[in-house]
Amino acid sequence: MSKVNIAEKFAKITECRKPRIAAELNGQHVKFVKLIGEFVFHHHEHEDEMFLVVKGRFRMDFRDRHEWIEEGEFIVVPRGVEHRPVAEKEVWIVLFEPATTLNTGNVENEMTVRELERA
Amino acid sequence: MSKVNIAEKFAKITECRKPRIAAELNGQHVKFVKLIGEFVFHHHEHEDEMFLVVKGRFRMDFRDRHEWIEEGEFIVVPRGVEHRPVAEKEVWIVLFEPATTLNTGNVENEMTVRELERA
Repeated sequence: MSKVNIAEKFAKITECRKPRIAAELNGQHVKFVKLIGEFVFHHHEHEDEMFLVVKGRFRMDFRDRHEWIEEGEFIVVPRGVEHRPVAEKEVWIVLFEPATTLNTGNVENEMTVRELERA
Repeated sequence: MSKVNIAEKFAKITECRKPRIAAELNGQHVKFVKLIGEFVFHHHEHEDEMFLVVKGRFRMDFRDRHEWIEEGEFIVVPRGVEHRPVAEKEVWIVLFEPATTLNTGNVENEMTVRELERA
């Protein structure tokens, strides 16, 4: 039970699109991920997903609209809703979601990461 | 499903020690709370609790030690562990915990808040 300094942990992450586990509580994971470029449209059947931006900004695409999520903002994407994060520049995102959540949801491709390392 | 700007929401909170619900996902609540002064020692029987500082700093007291949580840092207090937040100046904290969590845990006193408003 030690505190976590978010910026220090992110500074050590060298790869984009590879979420790292920063904490676990109540069956949920707090994950840190750096994103750049266009992710893949996907949804999570049983998991709501929270995206909190700690550095930079990104655009969350939905099938019928999009929303820019700026530093100091978050969005919760409910289960079943298709979404695709897009980042023009590197963005640092804190994810909050059930420990069972797969990054690409119902889609499996080269972006899928099954084994997550600790932040 | 709209994004939340953390600072804007906090700016509208006028009372300390009254957590407000900012989001709900997977049976968990994201709560915003402003603290000042000394809270009460308590624990949560079945809930782990995450404290993320978005403005200011506070000291988390445990029975045998304490830890300062600075802006941009978080700590997870596991279920069953007695803790007491203490803030010399106003601090803005994002809480992440099960929707069932009572702010004063096993203790009931004048600081207990049962009905939470939305942020």
